[in-house]
Amino acid sequence: MRKAILSTALICLAIWPTTGQINPDLSSYVNPFAGTMNMGHTFPGASMPFGFVQLSPDTDTVSYELNGRYNGDVYRYCAGYQYDDPTIVGFSHTHFSGTGHSDLGDFLMMPSTGPLKLNPGTADHPESGYRSRYSHDQEIAEPGYYSVMLDDYGIQAELTATTRVGIHRYTFPEAGPAHILLDLISGIYNYQDKNVWTFARIENDTLVTGYRQTNGWARTRTVYFAMTFSKPISQYGHRKYDRSVYNGFWRKFDESRNFPEMAGHQIRAWFDFDVKAGEQVMVKFALSPVSTAGAVENLMAEAPGWDFEQFRQGSREAWNRELGRIHVETMNEEHKRVFYTAMYHAFLSPSTYMDVDGQYRGLDQNNHQADGFINYTVFSLWDTYRALHPLFNFIQPSRNADMVKSMMAHYDQSVHRMLPVWSHHANENWCMIGYHAVPVLVDTYIKGNLTMNPKPVLDAVVTSATNGWYDGLKYYMELGYVPEDKNGSSVSKTLEYAYDDWCIAEMAKKMGNMTVYEQFKARSENYQNVYDSRIGFMRPRLSNGEWKQDFNTLATHNQGFIEGNAWNYSLYVPHQVEKMVEMMGGSKVFVRHLDSLFTMELDDEHFAHTEDITRDGLIGNYVHGNEPGHHIPYLYNWAGAPKKTQERVRMILETMYRDAPDGLCGNDDAGQMSAWYIFSALGFYPVAPGSDQYALGSPLVNSAVVQLENGKVLEIEAVNQSPKNVYVKKVLVNGQDIKRLYITHNELMNGGKITFQMSSR
Amino acid sequence: MRKAILSTALICLAIWPTTGQINPDLSSYVNPFAGTMNMGHTFPGASMPFGFVQLSPDTDTVSYELNGRYNGDVYRYCAGYQYDDPTIVGFSHTHFSGTGHSDLGDFLMMPSTGPLKLNPGTADHPESGYRSRYSHDQEIAEPGYYSVMLDDYGIQAELTATTRVGIHRYTFPEAGPAHILLDLISGIYNYQDKNVWTFARIENDTLVTGYRQTNGWARTRTVYFAMTFSKPISQYGHRKYDRSVYNGFWRKFDESRNFPEMAGHQIRAWFDFDVKAGEQVMVKFALSPVSTAGAVENLMAEAPGWDFEQFRQGSREAWNRELGRIHVETMNEEHKRVFYTAMYHAFLSPSTYMDVDGQYRGLDQNNHQADGFINYTVFSLWDTYRALHPLFNFIQPSRNADMVKSMMAHYDQSVHRMLPVWSHHANENWCMIGYHAVPVLVDTYIKGNLTMNPKPVLDAVVTSATNGWYDGLKYYMELGYVPEDKNGSSVSKTLEYAYDDWCIAEMAKKMGNMTVYEQFKARSENYQNVYDSRIGFMRPRLSNGEWKQDFNTLATHNQGFIEGNAWNYSLYVPHQVEKMVEMMGGSKVFVRHLDSLFTMELDDEHFAHTEDITRDGLIGNYVHGNEPGHHIPYLYNWAGAPKKTQERVRMILETMYRDAPDGLCGNDDAGQMSAWYIFSALGFYPVAPGSDQYALGSPLVNSAVVQLENGKVLEIEAVNQSPKNVYVKKVLVNGQDIKRLYITHNELMNGGKITFQMSSR
Repeated sequence: MRKAILSTALICLAIWPTTGQINPDLSSYVNPFAGTMNMGHTFPGASMPFGFVQLSPDTDTVSYELNGRYNGDVYRYCAGYQYDDPTIVGFSHTHFSGTGHSDLGDFLMMPSTGPLKLNPGTADHPESGYRSRYSHDQEIAEPGYYSVMLDDYGIQAELTATTRVGIHRYTFPEAGPAHILLDLISGIYNYQDKNVWTFARIENDTLVTGYRQTNGWARTRTVYFAMTFSKPISQYGHRKYDRSVYNGFWRKFDESRNFPEMAGHQIRAWFDFDVKAGEQVMVKFALSPVSTAGAVENLMAEAPGWDFEQFRQGSREAWNRELGRIHVETMNEEHKRVFYTAMYHAFLSPSTYMDVDGQYRGLDQNNHQADGFINYTVFSLWDTYRALHPLFNFIQPSRNADMVKSMMAHYDQSVHRMLPVWSHHANENWCMIGYHAVPVLVDTYIKGNLTMNPKPVLDAVVTSATNGWYDGLKYYMELGYVPEDKNGSSVSKTLEYAYDDWCIAEMAKKMGNMTVYEQFKARSENYQNVYDSRIGFMRPRLSNGEWKQDFNTLATHNQGFIEGNAWNYSLYVPHQVEKMVEMMGGSKVFVRHLDSLFTMELDDEHFAHTEDITRDGLIGNYVHGNEPGHHIPYLYNWAGAPKKTQERVRMILETMYRDAPDGLCGNDDAGQMSAWYIFSALGFYPVAPGSDQYALGSPLVNSAVVQLENGKVLEIEAVNQSPKNVYVKKVLVNGQDIKRLYITHNELMNGGKITFQMSSR
Repeated sequence: MRKAILSTALICLAIWPTTGQINPDLSSYVNPFAGTMNMGHTFPGASMPFGFVQLSPDTDTVSYELNGRYNGDVYRYCAGYQYDDPTIVGFSHTHFSGTGHSDLGDFLMMPSTGPLKLNPGTADHPESGYRSRYSHDQEIAEPGYYSVMLDDYGIQAELTATTRVGIHRYTFPEAGPAHILLDLISGIYNYQDKNVWTFARIENDTLVTGYRQTNGWARTRTVYFAMTFSKPISQYGHRKYDRSVYNGFWRKFDESRNFPEMAGHQIRAWFDFDVKAGEQVMVKFALSPVSTAGAVENLMAEAPGWDFEQFRQGSREAWNRELGRIHVETMNEEHKRVFYTAMYHAFLSPSTYMDVDGQYRGLDQNNHQADGFINYTVFSLWDTYRALHPLFNFIQPSRNADMVKSMMAHYDQSVHRMLPVWSHHANENWCMIGYHAVPVLVDTYIKGNLTMNPKPVLDAVVTSATNGWYDGLKYYMELGYVPEDKNGSSVSKTLEYAYDDWCIAEMAKKMGNMTVYEQFKARSENYQNVYDSRIGFMRPRLSNGEWKQDFNTLATHNQGFIEGNAWNYSLYVPHQVEKMVEMMGGSKVFVRHLDSLFTMELDDEHFAHTEDITRDGLIGNYVHGNEPGHHIPYLYNWAGAPKKTQERVRMILETMYRDAPDGLCGNDDAGQMSAWYIFSALGFYPVAPGSDQYALGSPLVNSAVVQLENGKVLEIEAVNQSPKNVYVKKVLVNGQDIKRLYITHNELMNGGKITFQMSSR
């Protein structure tokens, strides 16, 4: 399967004509530190594109201490790393990128010297444990490579990765005994009892296998590993921190030292090596979702040999191939760096979730064979259906088709008969609202990228949308809206269900299934049922049909919305914007609503309600740092004010994304924030995935060359581009003035040239 | 694979000539209650021969309560059932038979009516929980079938089983709602935190799948299940008793009712049915060591349809086939019942441990494919190497060859490079002492039953016997004995290692590997190093070579022995009995030692030291209820006093085994006690497995017809048999007086007739 994966990649490369200027090292524009401060929730460590292993330093792990005391800010450590932190606890092998909830952080490793310390210690007193101080001066992060000097030990730690194998290189300063710790307790978002079981076997003096099973955000998750050292272990051992241990006849042995099997709820293991001054010890750490045998297989297939630089180079080349799908020229260096950093973040997840032989753990906890596709996991769909999957339908259609197959496999294995909501590692976390696998599947179908029979896909979207037990859906189907007294966040749910339903109708229509079309076409208009025309806002209704009283349009909590207030969510009818404009009083009133949104002052009390963002993620009451409003800047187009779209889009591109650790104003959300940037910087955005149209905005780039997977090349040029020339006078497709405010998917896919004629007014 | 298993069974039948009188229903002589009182540790429930599912009532489960309080006598409930108990908690699917340690008891089910009760309640106040009173008057146990009236509910519960599927039939007395409880907390020998994780999915209205993972005696054990009901579930739910629960976004749902996925550390699930008066509801409950998919496969392959009587009949026929390997005629009905009950208990374990397709979980926790053999588990080798595996080499050679392959697979997967010591369900429990897989493997090889290349087998026995880290073995290899100051039970270990080493030498000699032969021949004489000729006993030595002071030959604890004292253990040189007799002062002194052993009074203090037995398991200081002395009654043969062997053997056969719940004087030990009975009742016993000789005793049967797997028939006749005629005047093999005190394995395997001429003097 490794062969298959490689050959797919090679085929993709082979069929792209190598026109346009080829930048040999686009990786050099990527700043993996962007978003590692505040709310970005990105990590700086090493990963392949869409890699399973995402090997990165954790600056705190925010675990419940073993005494049950909860020791920190869970939310802050979604990705394990916070740029402001003064210490590194260690390097763990799995991370979410940019998410608004935390898990993972499996298999934390840390090299050390001196007396063996098995507890992590605290940031205030790093010497109390195995963690180390470090400084950003001696820290490097590049796509597929990370390096840091661990000041407390003088050890340089370097990381790189293949898709399934994390590769560590530790350079020890002095001769003597050295430790490498494997902390099987540590994890991101530990709560008491998160660690269900850990198991490890020292197979021989360089190979260790095992697994870690957790009950965290994913409630039944197991990751298997196989790790190998570049030099023999001189001695090893572990300490068990279990609350109670039944040892049976194990009492005959001293398990704690040089006993080759370790098992328990809470284990920290250590491996000792005799090193020379300046000696480098490497660790290759393979993961598998299936078994330790699978991990060994992954290790052997992906990471033969001990040439660290070769692995590093391999990873960089893989990144250059993916980043090279779009070559941009920009007004300045920072724009280019921000663009490629966005590309990098957009390609970190979903992550590969299968062994090289195609085996993966399914939602039913059985092992399955991925037949002819790469199985992916980490579907943060409430975020990513908006722009990330549409971006993949544009520049990663093969991967997106496999993601659809992965979602369909999830559906087939679901005892709930439900497409994924927020799934990772063979679990459904049920996070956020809606059934937003639907727009991804439908968008893929509508855009001609589906590589499977559409019939079961239609069955899956219909079934997922008619599960009465799901989150107010029974009421929605009965009443045409979710009643707030029966199910909270009712307006958000009603609006998002209506959009998802429109997607189903579109798919059914194209397939000629008019029964399904009519049914869901009707449901797609349910947004009207929660619009209170007397106040001009979407508003929660009760099951008796009345409007909720005590309604605050600025507040988010308990007002019928989730992660957004009525000002923002009232604009959520992406599939029928014209009708929405009309419903809300016509263009003039609508533009006034938008203008107010972008300019009103949000007081501190109401700011506190907005989630996942920093203050600079706001423009007035518009929240760019979270998803519900991502389409809003483009809505002026439908109300006769495209120039205001162009202004707002350009403003957001320039102020909300920067080449700095605090360069993201909110969670990157598994690439959604970055995908918004990529589309918008190119001049267009998919307001309603499931349609073939992209709303036009204001490109930020000077030019772009897009290598399409169909072999064609799309050139984008912004003529007269400048910081001041934010307005688009004309858009030409292959020289033809299109005289409309959108371009179609076919126009992109046919290649050729799109020209934006920019102007200062 | 089911096909393969069936066809093997059919071939076995086909090649046996159907000579001799065939009893069509030997099952009717079996009393599954025998041994269910006191220390027998047998269970009365339903199982196929060597079945994976052993479905039996638990009369208490002796779990730590969830508050951490320990609520009972762990040891008493090794098999889950005690005949004296007044209540039944439920019916669980896995049990050890006769062992001296406890585990298993997976998936306890209980039918009930009335208000739903989810806690088991107490024996004193059964109405406080779901358990029920019952009486032995309305209880039936037969091979493959068990039935009981649950008095508190008026529900008749009937059980039967295929190899991998437990089948329940519950007859409900009245119309109305009925419950079937699946208690995933309950287990045998729970300690706090034993339940690592449980998971269940309600796949549809009649099928439930899931698994239970425990850290018990086996510290990393998982059993998967698939259960199906004969009528649709009307509603269902579960209660979670976890100490702390992180629910994540599960809070959106009420998981406790009709939510089709359950997961947690401590769960009890219930399923409701609307029943008519007198309605029977069936449950088929399949197990797998591998996955829920495997369990479903097992269910479909082994248990199609809903004909309870057909499954019951299938099980009875399977038992009759196995019991029919020996047809005996006896002096009275009880002897026949005790004989077939012993055959029944001897054939309950080791148990099949693989799916119908050959997949099983290995010691490395990976799934493996059993290639051309049935994989077995539950190897209680310190017990069973003595007579049970030799019995299999006599009348179950194909199964025994597969057990050897199972042990070799264990070895291949062992990170310790060690053959099994006490293994079950992909775990090594390290229980008791020695490396007694060795005599099993060697005996199989010596007797020509090995069905694999002997070379890796020799490698495995040598490697297992030279692991310096194992239980004093380093000292044993250095000093020639295990020193008591370094490693307790040192004399028992030294003696048993020496015997095992002799086995290795025998195998090496036959294979022509003289290096290994010489090495282990020398080691086999190490018993001499712990014999203190001044006192005439084996005695612990210290690492400085001196004898342990304060030595008590009657005590067991801290005297250098385990489950035996110096009087018994000093006789443990089964491989060089002649030399031992000489070493201990010649025949006269030796006979005096034996006579004293059998006649001395053991005071209460020292009786308290003997383990696993009741008072009536003693004859003087000879302990028949535990293993170290099982060969002792036969030792008179080597000291010129065969008539004393005949007396003692006959006495033991008649007094230590009875057709009653308290009919076993000690743990049946996975069939070892029963195997002793079977051999001895036929007139001979394998004092030193690994040799081809069986010592002659005094047969209890009038005659026996043994259907050998090689197609030959062995007849045994005791001429002039009577209760008084315990002495053997002559033994004829095919009419020829053999004039010796042993017969050889070839003499058995060649078939024909062995005649014992009995006499009263």
